[in-house]
Amino acid sequence: MLEEWKFSQKKWDEAECKARLKARRLDLAGLQQPIKAAGLPVIVLIEGWGASGKGSMIRSLIRELDPRGFLVRSVTMPTQEERRWPFLKRHFEAIPEQGKILFLDSGWMDETVRERLRGDLSDGEYQRRLESVRMFERQLAAGGYLLVKLFLHIEQDAQRKRLEKLEKHKDTAWRVGENDWRQNKNYRRTQEAFDDFMEATHTDWAPWKVIDSTSAPYAQAAAADWLYQQITAALRCPPTAEPPVYRWPLVETEPLEKIKLDKSLDKDKYQRELEACREKLEDLHNQLYRKKIPVVIAYEGWDAAGKGGNIKRLASALDPRGYEVVPIASPTPDEKHRHYLWRFWRKLPKTGHIAIFDRSWYGRVMVERLEGFCTLEDWQRAYDEINEFERELTDAGAVVLKFWVQIDKDTQLQRFQARENTPEKRWKITDEDWRNREKWDEYQVAVNEMLARTNTENAPWYILESVDKRYARIKALKIVIRALEQALD
Amino acid sequence: MLEEWKFSQKKWDEAECKARLKARRLDLAGLQQPIKAAGLPVIVLIEGWGASGKGSMIRSLIRELDPRGFLVRSVTMPTQEERRWPFLKRHFEAIPEQGKILFLDSGWMDETVRERLRGDLSDGEYQRRLESVRMFERQLAAGGYLLVKLFLHIEQDAQRKRLEKLEKHKDTAWRVGENDWRQNKNYRRTQEAFDDFMEATHTDWAPWKVIDSTSAPYAQAAAADWLYQQITAALRCPPTAEPPVYRWPLVETEPLEKIKLDKSLDKDKYQRELEACREKLEDLHNQLYRKKIPVVIAYEGWDAAGKGGNIKRLASALDPRGYEVVPIASPTPDEKHRHYLWRFWRKLPKTGHIAIFDRSWYGRVMVERLEGFCTLEDWQRAYDEINEFERELTDAGAVVLKFWVQIDKDTQLQRFQARENTPEKRWKITDEDWRNREKWDEYQVAVNEMLARTNTENAPWYILESVDKRYARIKALKIVIRALEQALD
Repeated sequence: MLEEWKFSQKKWDEAECKARLKARRLDLAGLQQPIKAAGLPVIVLIEGWGASGKGSMIRSLIRELDPRGFLVRSVTMPTQEERRWPFLKRHFEAIPEQGKILFLDSGWMDETVRERLRGDLSDGEYQRRLESVRMFERQLAAGGYLLVKLFLHIEQDAQRKRLEKLEKHKDTAWRVGENDWRQNKNYRRTQEAFDDFMEATHTDWAPWKVIDSTSAPYAQAAAADWLYQQITAALRCPPTAEPPVYRWPLVETEPLEKIKLDKSLDKDKYQRELEACREKLEDLHNQLYRKKIPVVIAYEGWDAAGKGGNIKRLASALDPRGYEVVPIASPTPDEKHRHYLWRFWRKLPKTGHIAIFDRSWYGRVMVERLEGFCTLEDWQRAYDEINEFERELTDAGAVVLKFWVQIDKDTQLQRFQARENTPEKRWKITDEDWRNREKWDEYQVAVNEMLARTNTENAPWYILESVDKRYARIKALKIVIRALEQALD
Repeated sequence: MLEEWKFSQKKWDEAECKARLKARRLDLAGLQQPIKAAGLPVIVLIEGWGASGKGSMIRSLIRELDPRGFLVRSVTMPTQEERRWPFLKRHFEAIPEQGKILFLDSGWMDETVRERLRGDLSDGEYQRRLESVRMFERQLAAGGYLLVKLFLHIEQDAQRKRLEKLEKHKDTAWRVGENDWRQNKNYRRTQEAFDDFMEATHTDWAPWKVIDSTSAPYAQAAAADWLYQQITAALRCPPTAEPPVYRWPLVETEPLEKIKLDKSLDKDKYQRELEACREKLEDLHNQLYRKKIPVVIAYEGWDAAGKGGNIKRLASALDPRGYEVVPIASPTPDEKHRHYLWRFWRKLPKTGHIAIFDRSWYGRVMVERLEGFCTLEDWQRAYDEINEFERELTDAGAVVLKFWVQIDKDTQLQRFQARENTPEKRWKITDEDWRNREKWDEYQVAVNEMLARTNTENAPWYILESVDKRYARIKALKIVIRALEQALD
């Protein structure tokens, strides 16, 4: 994209630039209310050369905006702590809520290109990064996010002069970093790296726009113009993206109705096995911590299937400083107004830690599907999005396991009734549980489809037969133990 | 506290310890539902010697608990990034929501004592830390938080043996740090430092409990016992604390009704001044960044007084990578279920950055007072709590400014009507605005009291006469400029 780029494509003289910029700033301010009303989330990613004017660009674009409707984020290189999570985490975590504009002063491109040029990423790792970025941008667009990506372009000489000028003044000298000079000295090589990244991430739903930044007034007017066009287009017709083409290889699953539920374990054997598993897990958790492997365990299952008790037995075998149980309830307003995967990205474990999700992102293809909280397209697309999400985790070295806690309809009824008849357990049963029960058959269809479409090799589903809860608990512990042993092997 | 402590005060033999522990664990599990029902937030701070068994203690206490009702946090020394905020920030940020128990594996005591022993804190800084901690614990207790503070005590020999044992095994060797050996080698000196901290923070509402940890079963049984007693007591009678004794020196204020609102600025002069202030601020913001001074600016004012436009003019003069506008609306469920200052602690700027709060913590003594969202004691106590909060910020080097945007009742009416008659501004006016207007006089009483009781030298209030919005904007800009110049001086 930059290779064939010609500078001096300016169509406007300086007076016209200024007039346009002024008009467009007011136009952009005028769009804030429509953006809010439409619930359109906008991400404006501003990448470019060091000293190409990214800061002034943002400042110019927001000049007339109501500060309550936008956010600016200056993205620096990840800290040591941030490197303990998958690359995308901090970027996903920063996405704006519906109706707000987020301006990013560089982001996932700068990070990736820098690390590549420094030799911190192998070719394979770099290609994998590109995949992550494409996935990230596609999921956001499909989720209704408008992505505006600008690249501020200047020539080698112009960059050098700007860096020299900045260095002269005490109050601006700190803005010039080693990396800026490295770029300037290796201009061709850096440009090739930018170009390669941009070619690989230039899509219909998140196209790159190269802005000639030789003159600030022109660059700002052109950017304001482009941003205005992109937002008005998105307001007319909401963002979208094509579905992922590649489907993850799936492992076949058995439909729920075929699963035998007669397995059981007597109390003595249970106690012995529980103690043995606990000791084993304690030991594995220490090793995990030392080898910095993160673990993600998701629990799903019928109401009253015994999820809570199962999680408790697993959790109590772990070092409490190294795990967290993440209960997933209906989304808070903050969560509801962002991409549905946002709240899960935020709760991922860092290296060496374990996150146990009590219900999970699979709500998208169960309750949200059945209750109509998302559209048909939304939940159908979600299978692949979830597979992609889990792939990001396992590619970053995580162990990912998913449990479905299974009982039959009669067992559920008995447990509901037992809860209602036991005063100290009555809070556990709500009208909603009874309503969900009425939809058992619909849920079964959805769960079977979910299992079939998301049972990947890297992030497999396991069925826990939980008519006998003791059996289910020991089975879960053993599966976790085996998975950790394999990961530590 | 530790000086006069005698080891071997054990009252129970090992069998009794085990039986008690087992029973108390079940008792604690049985308290989870009452804790949830009462909305009681519980913080269990476990401090103690290195290798005194803090980890196993937590593990033992949570053994029978439902993982959805508690959280465990292992508090390490603050990172470089975390040091860019006031000491209390990361601790305040971690407080649990109502109905949940938070177990802390060391915390503000370990951090403070370590830094003191390392010589990173001067005597004055250390005394200031103690004040912060006392304030923190008192505010939490007054806000209904139960604080249970345990100190796990072992003798020098016992510690040495444990450290040696841990170091022998590959999977536990990483648990032993330099600090643990330093403690052991300087046992007396460390004990004195612990003792000093504990004496200074031993209060009725957050007492220390020293636990003899020579034998793990005894320590765990004793801790479970104590925790059970503390929780049952708090459920019977909610936590509370005495009000702060010391009152901040206040600067006298003028009542709103005496403020002259006839000030104005013509358009030409306004434009010239605006441009001049912008340039000045741009320059100051750079210096601020370099000198790592954080700035907190809070805006309060009548509906339609021109808060938004005022903030916009201020914000547009700042480097967008260095400030954030924080709009404060009604609290989300997450926020409502925690101490009312929690959401503000979370949004504080780091060193060199500016946070502009569009409405603020003063909601406590205005809308929450008048709408009955908190009790009489709550809002009356809040004046001092807010003064303390702001004192924490300014003592950490922050500039804190507060603006009250003032208009008269007639001007508000005209602006409300103008909004209703202008289609693109109609969204700005809601029924709530009209309802608030009816309470003008009550609000005026509350605002006058607020100004009078929170106008401190370190965090002063400024009135912006905003019948002429241009005048108010330039006044705000000049006040900010002067404050920054003073801070940079």
